Amino acid sequence: MSIPTRPAPLFVPDEVLDRLAKVTSGSLTTQLYKKGYRQPVMVGLKPLNTPFKPFAGRAFTMRFIPAREDVDTYATLTTEPHVNNLQWVGVEEVKPGEVVVIDSYRDASAASMGNMLITRMKMRGARGVVTDGAFRDGTELSQMDFPIWSAGVTATTRLSFHHVADLQVPIGCAGVAVYPGDVIHGDGDNITVVPAHLAAEMADLCEAQDDLEGYLAMRVQGGEALWGLYPPSPATREQHKAWVAAGRPPIKAA
Amino acid sequence: MSIPTRPAPLFVPDEVLDRLAKVTSGSLTTQLYKKGYRQPVMVGLKPLNTPFKPFAGRAFTMRFIPAREDVDTYATLTTEPHVNNLQWVGVEEVKPGEVVVIDSYRDASAASMGNMLITRMKMRGARGVVTDGAFRDGTELSQMDFPIWSAGVTATTRLSFHHVADLQVPIGCAGVAVYPGDVIHGDGDNITVVPAHLAAEMADLCEAQDDLEGYLAMRVQGGEALWGLYPPSPATREQHKAWVAAGRPPIKAA
Amino acid sequence: MSIPTRPAPLFVPDEVLDRLAKVTSGSLTTQLYKKGYRQPVMVGLKPLNTPFKPFAGRAFTMRFIPAREDVDTYATLTTEPHVNNLQWVGVEEVKPGEVVVIDSYRDASAASMGNMLITRMKMRGARGVVTDGAFRDGTELSQMDFPIWSAGVTATTRLSFHHVADLQVPIGCAGVAVYPGDVIHGDGDNITVVPAHLAAEMADLCEAQDDLEGYLAMRVQGGEALWGLYPPSPATREQHKAWVAAGRPPIKAA
Amino acid sequence: MSIPTRPAPLFVPDEVLDRLAKVTSGSLTTQLYKKGYRQPVMVGLKPLNTPFKPFAGRAFTMRFIPAREDVDTYATLTTEPHVNNLQWVGVEEVKPGEVVVIDSYRDASAASMGNMLITRMKMRGARGVVTDGAFRDGTELSQMDFPIWSAGVTATTRLSFHHVADLQVPIGCAGVAVYPGDVIHGDGDNITVVPAHLAAEMADLCEAQDDLEGYLAMRVQGGEALWGLYPPSPATREQHKAWVAAGRPPIKAA
Amino acid sequence: MSIPTRPAPLFVPDEVLDRLAKVTSGSLTTQLYKKGYRQPVMVGLKPLNTPFKPFAGRAFTMRFIPAREDVDTYATLTTEPHVNNLQWVGVEEVKPGEVVVIDSYRDASAASMGNMLITRMKMRGARGVVTDGAFRDGTELSQMDFPIWSAGVTATTRLSFHHVADLQVPIGCAGVAVYPGDVIHGDGDNITVVPAHLAAEMADLCEAQDDLEGYLAMRVQGGEALWGLYPPSPATREQHKAWVAAGRPPIKAA
Amino acid sequence: MSIPTRPAPLFVPDEVLDRLAKVTSGSLTTQLYKKGYRQPVMVGLKPLNTPFKPFAGRAFTMRFIPAREDVDTYATLTTEPHVNNLQWVGVEEVKPGEVVVIDSYRDASAASMGNMLITRMKMRGARGVVTDGAFRDGTELSQMDFPIWSAGVTATTRLSFHHVADLQVPIGCAGVAVYPGDVIHGDGDNITVVPAHLAAEMADLCEAQDDLEGYLAMRVQGGEALWGLYPPSPATREQHKAWVAAGRPPIKAA
Repeated sequence: MSIPTRPAPLFVPDEVLDRLAKVTSGSLTTQLYKKGYRQPVMVGLKPLNTPFKPFAGRAFTMRFIPAREDVDTYATLTTEPHVNNLQWVGVEEVKPGEVVVIDSYRDASAASMGNMLITRMKMRGARGVVTDGAFRDGTELSQMDFPIWSAGVTATTRLSFHHVADLQVPIGCAGVAVYPGDVIHGDGDNITVVPAHLAAEMADLCEAQDDLEGYLAMRVQGGEALWGLYPPSPATREQHKAWVAAGRPPIKAA
Repeated sequence: MSIPTRPAPLFVPDEVLDRLAKVTSGSLTTQLYKKGYRQPVMVGLKPLNTPFKPFAGRAFTMRFIPAREDVDTYATLTTEPHVNNLQWVGVEEVKPGEVVVIDSYRDASAASMGNMLITRMKMRGARGVVTDGAFRDGTELSQMDFPIWSAGVTATTRLSFHHVADLQVPIGCAGVAVYPGDVIHGDGDNITVVPAHLAAEMADLCEAQDDLEGYLAMRVQGGEALWGLYPPSPATREQHKAWVAAGRPPIKAA
Repeated sequence: MSIPTRPAPLFVPDEVLDRLAKVTSGSLTTQLYKKGYRQPVMVGLKPLNTPFKPFAGRAFTMRFIPAREDVDTYATLTTEPHVNNLQWVGVEEVKPGEVVVIDSYRDASAASMGNMLITRMKMRGARGVVTDGAFRDGTELSQMDFPIWSAGVTATTRLSFHHVADLQVPIGCAGVAVYPGDVIHGDGDNITVVPAHLAAEMADLCEAQDDLEGYLAMRVQGGEALWGLYPPSPATREQHKAWVAAGRPPIKAA
Repeated sequence: MSIPTRPAPLFVPDEVLDRLAKVTSGSLTTQLYKKGYRQPVMVGLKPLNTPFKPFAGRAFTMRFIPAREDVDTYATLTTEPHVNNLQWVGVEEVKPGEVVVIDSYRDASAASMGNMLITRMKMRGARGVVTDGAFRDGTELSQMDFPIWSAGVTATTRLSFHHVADLQVPIGCAGVAVYPGDVIHGDGDNITVVPAHLAAEMADLCEAQDDLEGYLAMRVQGGEALWGLYPPSPATREQHKAWVAAGRPPIKAA
Repeated sequence: MSIPTRPAPLFVPDEVLDRLAKVTSGSLTTQLYKKGYRQPVMVGLKPLNTPFKPFAGRAFTMRFIPAREDVDTYATLTTEPHVNNLQWVGVEEVKPGEVVVIDSYRDASAASMGNMLITRMKMRGARGVVTDGAFRDGTELSQMDFPIWSAGVTATTRLSFHHVADLQVPIGCAGVAVYPGDVIHGDGDNITVVPAHLAAEMADLCEAQDDLEGYLAMRVQGGEALWGLYPPSPATREQHKAWVAAGRPPIKAA
Repeated sequence: MSIPTRPAPLFVPDEVLDRLAKVTSGSLTTQLYKKGYRQPVMVGLKPLNTPFKPFAGRAFTMRFIPAREDVDTYATLTTEPHVNNLQWVGVEEVKPGEVVVIDSYRDASAASMGNMLITRMKMRGARGVVTDGAFRDGTELSQMDFPIWSAGVTATTRLSFHHVADLQVPIGCAGVAVYPGDVIHGDGDNITVVPAHLAAEMADLCEAQDDLEGYLAMRVQGGEALWGLYPPSPATREQHKAWVAAGRPPIKAA
């Protein structure tokens, strides 16, 4: 008996990524919830780069397991591809439009990687890097114009505690399943995972929700009560359409 | 047999709140410790609004329990009051001078609420909002001139994991008991809970302590040793009085 | 039978401290890893002072145990040395060039100390203070030009939960062994512990590594791939030497 | 505006409880999963009574919050009903067929109750008691013929850390929502919560599943492979029916 | 300035230990609570020896810190006393009537010690051994007629992660302060710490409480309600005295 | 560039497994420590089968990631091999002498598997099954003559929270790296991982250590002090050899 294999992931085109990069995690999580997805957010991760930079990209996954003293030595930081140096292989495999997502099994006791490799991925056209562990070189990373999300900053070399076991396999990251090719979305709040087959539909739904909610927020700021207004009743939705048709005039206080 | 019920909470007047808003959590916790209260601080919560804004208000409580798939659906976000939409009810019940405190049983896997409801509470005159879970819309909240404290930022919709079970009952929040009407105090450091019956006394004690400690801090900055100076000896307290009487002249280096 | 005692710690001179203060935690952890030290970093601690301030100093240790109601009372905040007020004793024992490291057994439920004692230690010439618990007075501390690292900010008075049991004994802090006299190093990323006997050697090794990696980072930013470049091959090391010899000219994009 | 209130809970009759007490948590969780309930199990709780005793009863809930020094004193252990002694009130309100479920917010640092109150509830006809904290008197409880589930054994008096804030309100217990009147089920493995409106249907479904799976287990023990057998194919279901019709003859090894 | 030192601990005589060994942790924690001690119990520890064996002894403390690769090597398992082999020193210093309490800072990733050292301490007259980490050789220990309490069983050699830093200093163990000479009490439920100066008084109070509660438990088992009976009213206390005076006759069902 | 692949694992023969099954985890961890392996133990796992059964087998690995609502449905419990039913594939791929090790990323919120699949693996000749999550059907498993280790018992169906992502890849289990083919060893205390290339050497070393330590334990039980005896001095080792040569006569009390 042979082990069944997964089909190649769907390819989400750049124009969908570009639209998704502009929607909010609030709309994404609500719309994904309506489709049955309870937890698409990597709870607890934060951006190191300041100010943060909204983005969306195709997931390129990297899987860690605990290091072992005979396998993970300084000698594995080879200058050419090697099965025990898959991290370098991964960095040099990343393609434009991808976001590297690292399953560090929520262990921040050593760095997932640091400034040098992240710079290289940026140069290769990656759109961001995410780990549920930590990165080193936090000071440099904080000044990089590149989305870098983690659970912390730890200088300890990866070799102390982590082994890179696989590239481009399904992983868990901060409690969320990530399949290669899924859309990884980041705004100022969170990293959200969008299944590849829903990417285009989510762009439509979230653009509409963000626009409507922006309108409602102004009315709430104007002093209106929630009842009937938010969540939007059919009448409210009509008022929104009329407001859009009217050229989005200023909202007056109630 | 009927179940005994609690008497209505004491009402702490606004002028006491205004005085408490100006004292430090350091003095509050020390004075409460002297009265026998070991832990009045909600350890681990942080303000989302930057810069932070000191405040004090009367607790309005909201209690969460885990969501259940048959109870907590998108349909419960009703446009009129409903037993399964107590969150909206709570927001529209908040009165000026109150601080909404949410018992999210320390679970940040979904948002306690977001920008829209928090804006509405601010419009209604609330003085702040606190959860031991997370809020969504962190980016907008960070720019709001309103005290917003949480254990994190999570976009995931509340419906995924939380049900609002009760309003205005005693709760625990980040390990501290909160009874409706207690004073919720926030400075740049922490959220501190002051039992309502101690509010006025605490204002007196902490104003005095803050003034004395400000004086002592200048003397320590001036190079004096702790022994005899801090904690203040009777002689030091006399020196403080004299310094106040003298019009608070500059402290010279020792 | 008597209990064997430890020899006095090595004294790391100020000039070594000054050199170490300038190297990065990335280089330190890598070089310590090569010597067999897997975890020299206090994972999870962050600087309260902003902007952070790189430093290195000799460890002065303070050990906490849980408070007990009969031992730890407000009366122990004495104005003269007392066995139950070792915290004041410690503060007044700190010498120039030392960093106070507090073993709060990772319990942030009360403050390790606050503004007044930290100011006093700074006045005495300390180079920083570190706890794996929390400090109070975070607002004041954030503005102090002094390295202050902790796992959080908690106003609760130390007396509620902590007793100072010992000074200048080996401790654990955030999972790392600290022997009095070890070098405590902080940059913008982490606190790293350097065994005293390795301090001078580490200064040599890390200065060299930081210089080489700065050169390599520029080449990576210039577009070069990792293979052969980083980790540095013998050829790359020669190129670095030549670049240094040539007066460190600008690196062009590849 | 008044706060909407919940309707009275459904009453699950004793005969349904008696049937549910005989089904397995394995079947219950599978059938609840098919209805959309992902987590009906209180993960991590264990029975103190040995040997364990399968049971099912109607939930009677008791809600804890953190104790406060001025509210929770030894004097609250009154000999008559009192708002600060709701625990005694609850024990004397329990009715036959009920299971007391305590929301101790997963804090086992003090006992939820002990031998005396649990004995009293047993005498009143309760079918079990569950806490996500701890009980004291574990030695006596281990020998009681009564289902007693907890996260641990702690002698510390409840007064140290817990206040009983409410009776018969919706709670969370070990991460699961419990509404008064829900069926609380325990076998040798876990506590499972069955929404009251599903109780009778679950009895039907689980009796059928347990019977089928018992048959399949014998076939697997007889050496058959899983493919086609388990999960049961239509043919396998027919074979099960035939086996039942044939009087459940012994299963031979494959 | 010299560092103040602690006076020698009080010596609790064996006859008090023998009386305390017979009282329950339930009574001890209640009586200690009445004196102001909120948490005298090492929450989460369990006995490895089965059946458990009630005991009380004078605390002999052993303090661990994290191991360091250059200090903690196999070579430190010396055959004569050495500063880096304080564990052996401690074992050979234990005196009859003592209980060894190990502060493993709640880290069970390596063994605190194993069968050989524990056997040796038993031979020397120790009354038990407690760690908030783990022991190895759990299988042998489970069959030893000696109280052995821990948070788990881990075979990993202590050298991997723990260094013995001190003997006979105040420690924390599972969150409770232990001063050398305190009484360490274990029954079937928990380890409880009794401050030495309260040992004799606690023996008196707990013997009385245990006797009274045994009587009340029989009345509750007989069907009486809690109100008026438990906590005992003055009338109930009189009834208890009368019952004792009458020779402790059987209690009939109510 | 192609991704480098791992060579096939070493095959540890059954006779080495049989020898290893008889040595203790205490000796294994000590000997592995001497080779540089700090943590070969899966801390926190316990056997469900009682009494426990010592074993050693070749690792067959199964990797979990978080479930996703669109991928993990009841429909994936197919009756023939399918990429989303790798668990069934794995069970039917297990070969005699193997131990199934499941990386459930330490999440016990749903079962890794239950009675039916474990029975099937036993029938196929597996030597045990290990997860760092939980199993369901704990009652049945406790009576099975088969080594079954986990972090708990949870009835919740795997589909709720876990997806089987891979078979026979390197994994982490309870913090320890496991490569397919490694020896998984269980005694009454722990699961220990032995790298395949060290299996035969470990059998030699541990048989010798266990024999020597058994002898020393008897001498300690006879009343001898540790100094000079344990760790064994050269003289002690000679005495052990003489004792073996003399036919292992009874050890008298010192």
